[in-house]
Amino acid sequence: MPLSKKLTAEFLGTFWLVLGGCGSAVLSALIPDIGIGILGVSIAFGLTVLTAAYAIGHISGCHLNPAVSVGLCTAGRFPAAHLLPYIIAQVIGAIAAAGVIYLIASGKAGWTPHGGLASNGYGDHSPGGYALKSGLVSEIVMTFMFLMVILGATDKRAPSGFAPIAIGLCLTLIHLISIPVTNTSVNPARSTGPAIIVGDWALAQLWLFWVAPIVGAAIAGFAYKSVFEKE
Amino acid sequence: MPLSKKLTAEFLGTFWLVLGGCGSAVLSALIPDIGIGILGVSIAFGLTVLTAAYAIGHISGCHLNPAVSVGLCTAGRFPAAHLLPYIIAQVIGAIAAAGVIYLIASGKAGWTPHGGLASNGYGDHSPGGYALKSGLVSEIVMTFMFLMVILGATDKRAPSGFAPIAIGLCLTLIHLISIPVTNTSVNPARSTGPAIIVGDWALAQLWLFWVAPIVGAAIAGFAYKSVFEKE
Amino acid sequence: MPLSKKLTAEFLGTFWLVLGGCGSAVLSALIPDIGIGILGVSIAFGLTVLTAAYAIGHISGCHLNPAVSVGLCTAGRFPAAHLLPYIIAQVIGAIAAAGVIYLIASGKAGWTPHGGLASNGYGDHSPGGYALKSGLVSEIVMTFMFLMVILGATDKRAPSGFAPIAIGLCLTLIHLISIPVTNTSVNPARSTGPAIIVGDWALAQLWLFWVAPIVGAAIAGFAYKSVFEKE
Amino acid sequence: MPLSKKLTAEFLGTFWLVLGGCGSAVLSALIPDIGIGILGVSIAFGLTVLTAAYAIGHISGCHLNPAVSVGLCTAGRFPAAHLLPYIIAQVIGAIAAAGVIYLIASGKAGWTPHGGLASNGYGDHSPGGYALKSGLVSEIVMTFMFLMVILGATDKRAPSGFAPIAIGLCLTLIHLISIPVTNTSVNPARSTGPAIIVGDWALAQLWLFWVAPIVGAAIAGFAYKSVFEKE
Repeated sequence: MPLSKKLTAEFLGTFWLVLGGCGSAVLSALIPDIGIGILGVSIAFGLTVLTAAYAIGHISGCHLNPAVSVGLCTAGRFPAAHLLPYIIAQVIGAIAAAGVIYLIASGKAGWTPHGGLASNGYGDHSPGGYALKSGLVSEIVMTFMFLMVILGATDKRAPSGFAPIAIGLCLTLIHLISIPVTNTSVNPARSTGPAIIVGDWALAQLWLFWVAPIVGAAIAGFAYKSVFEKE
Repeated sequence: MPLSKKLTAEFLGTFWLVLGGCGSAVLSALIPDIGIGILGVSIAFGLTVLTAAYAIGHISGCHLNPAVSVGLCTAGRFPAAHLLPYIIAQVIGAIAAAGVIYLIASGKAGWTPHGGLASNGYGDHSPGGYALKSGLVSEIVMTFMFLMVILGATDKRAPSGFAPIAIGLCLTLIHLISIPVTNTSVNPARSTGPAIIVGDWALAQLWLFWVAPIVGAAIAGFAYKSVFEKE
Repeated sequence: MPLSKKLTAEFLGTFWLVLGGCGSAVLSALIPDIGIGILGVSIAFGLTVLTAAYAIGHISGCHLNPAVSVGLCTAGRFPAAHLLPYIIAQVIGAIAAAGVIYLIASGKAGWTPHGGLASNGYGDHSPGGYALKSGLVSEIVMTFMFLMVILGATDKRAPSGFAPIAIGLCLTLIHLISIPVTNTSVNPARSTGPAIIVGDWALAQLWLFWVAPIVGAAIAGFAYKSVFEKE
Repeated sequence: MPLSKKLTAEFLGTFWLVLGGCGSAVLSALIPDIGIGILGVSIAFGLTVLTAAYAIGHISGCHLNPAVSVGLCTAGRFPAAHLLPYIIAQVIGAIAAAGVIYLIASGKAGWTPHGGLASNGYGDHSPGGYALKSGLVSEIVMTFMFLMVILGATDKRAPSGFAPIAIGLCLTLIHLISIPVTNTSVNPARSTGPAIIVGDWALAQLWLFWVAPIVGAAIAGFAYKSVFEKE
């Protein structure tokens, strides 16, 4: 499989992750009485990964997330030479999705992107008012555990074919826990898409959603390889 | 397997899709406090496809949707000669389901179909008041991604047996995103069933829910075949 | 496998179905703000079958439902000689579960079983006020489709191992549609357990929840065998 | 696989169970209008087990629960010599998770752990006001059924690879039924983590959440082995 096809798949998959996760948050979460709330948005994020992993897993491995690519790299399962092109494709896919959400949402009279387009934030921009400290701990720990599940579920000793279910539903679980803290990133591309359209505070706080997920993922990659791979 | 049995399966499966999806919307979505809301209706639509795909996938391929049949056709996986009979069986199944929903719902004192029987719409008839532009973009993009997931998850390189889970939950995801925009179609047969009973505006707006899903699906079929199938 | 072990499994599985489905309805559905509502009860019913089917499917086939046993019988997949013992084991399991629900629920000050213990009903005892006609149509059609999914998903041509997911989630779907109509039975044993403790109207209306599910299931068994099994 | 790696896996998995289950309860359950409620917390608990079982099942068997280790032991599937080290690793993991939840939650102005950190309780500390008797019955029966599902779904005669789905979703189901009664334990380690930070009544009532789950699990182990394993 040539790299260009892998990159097309990563673009499309990350587009789907942000369109489904942030799109459902923007369009469906807050409707009175029948809105999908945090539970529905968590399910939506998880299902983007579950569906994309069955659809394009055989093409690109379906990372959809710079932190995942880094973690797979430190675990020795992904070549460092592909890291940058993968990350670029993911970020472009996320920005394209934010644009489509904007296009659809702006068809409603009176809508503005100032609600945040499901951007990630901490402190004053944490959905539940959680401090920077909480955001850092949450994003590092959640991404660490996300990578442990990814590495474990795709281990040759795990049952074959089920990894997309485990990994997708793990992302659902992570959102169920941490949406109130940071709106949940664990994925720098997912954070970058909406931040570029919202600008302002979302861009100013974007650093945390690159640093924390990548730190958590890189540690997980080293840890899984050194603890669980050698018998 | 003779074509007549495939058509019986498509009739039955599309009947189930509309009965489960639109039926749960009409009967269970809006009940105060305990109603299932957008999340429950999204799950119901997805589970109709998941269950039908395990039940009749081995008989007809379980399209249940004219746009799916068209997309599989442009991807080179379904013979054009079967397109029309499949679509007719699907539409009849959808109309039969709308009739059964009417039969059950009308057993409640004071109920009328003027609530819309879960019809699809845009502008004044969009659940969230989204303009025609939003509806067009949403239906084309959602059906495009639906077909990408269908084509990818049933690709020979994808894990075998899991496609009904991926495809069913993809339909759940699509509803989580786009019910507020158009009540979510991505399926001309599903739109036609309720529209025929509701008449009026539902019939007048029906054209969009034939054009947009079929356009999105047809493009996806070409795209998957030309980008991802050749190595 | 001796019949006695199969009957123990059917007892235990039907106990689980009623304890999980009716128990979650009685204990968790109506709590203000955080209650699980119709969506949660629907998921609970489905998960009783999904979990039991993986746990005891290899022992008894995991019917847990007289209508399922009848439908498998008319489809030629279950010996008529085992019908009565299976049904008796299922009904005893359901009654035992209703007793345990009563035991737990009565530990709350002021609780009485007059709320109905999640009994099934029509007319004045339909949760949404639906007439007998609606209840009959709903129970027959839902059980018919339930059996079509059971027979299709356990067909030798369907992917192996996934039937418990398809069948369990089909029961979730059926509840999402029809709880407002009859509180959803599609299972005479499930209806009998609570009715025996509640007595009164629940016993008086119990006939419908034996007749309609068994009629729907019996027709489905004949239909699947004659339409889809012969090529 | 050396025991030390199995214990690391049990520590990590139980950490995940408590972080995901109790964490989502503390952070996301009670938010007005969009909070995840009992349904979301039930899904979170189940997904911790589902994801961990695919990630570390091949390493330690993924018990994450002293009652599960005991039940597997009485069923003859786990060596008694490993019981104590497994239980110690599980309890330490649960305490570590309660600490991380405390760390994240305390980043919100005005938050105190007096809400209980999702501790288990009965009587005055039962979420729904259920008496000790209800708590005892519920915890024994739920853990008994949990082990029956675990033992059945991992039986050699059950479909291979699906056990994490059956077992994880069984824990979801158990929470859907019994959160109002005891906040649902069925797992002494899960109860111990928050109780140690909350202290006071949570520690005083902790005995029940060691005794009841272990009794229910031990009986289930004996029962499955003697009834269902010998043909």
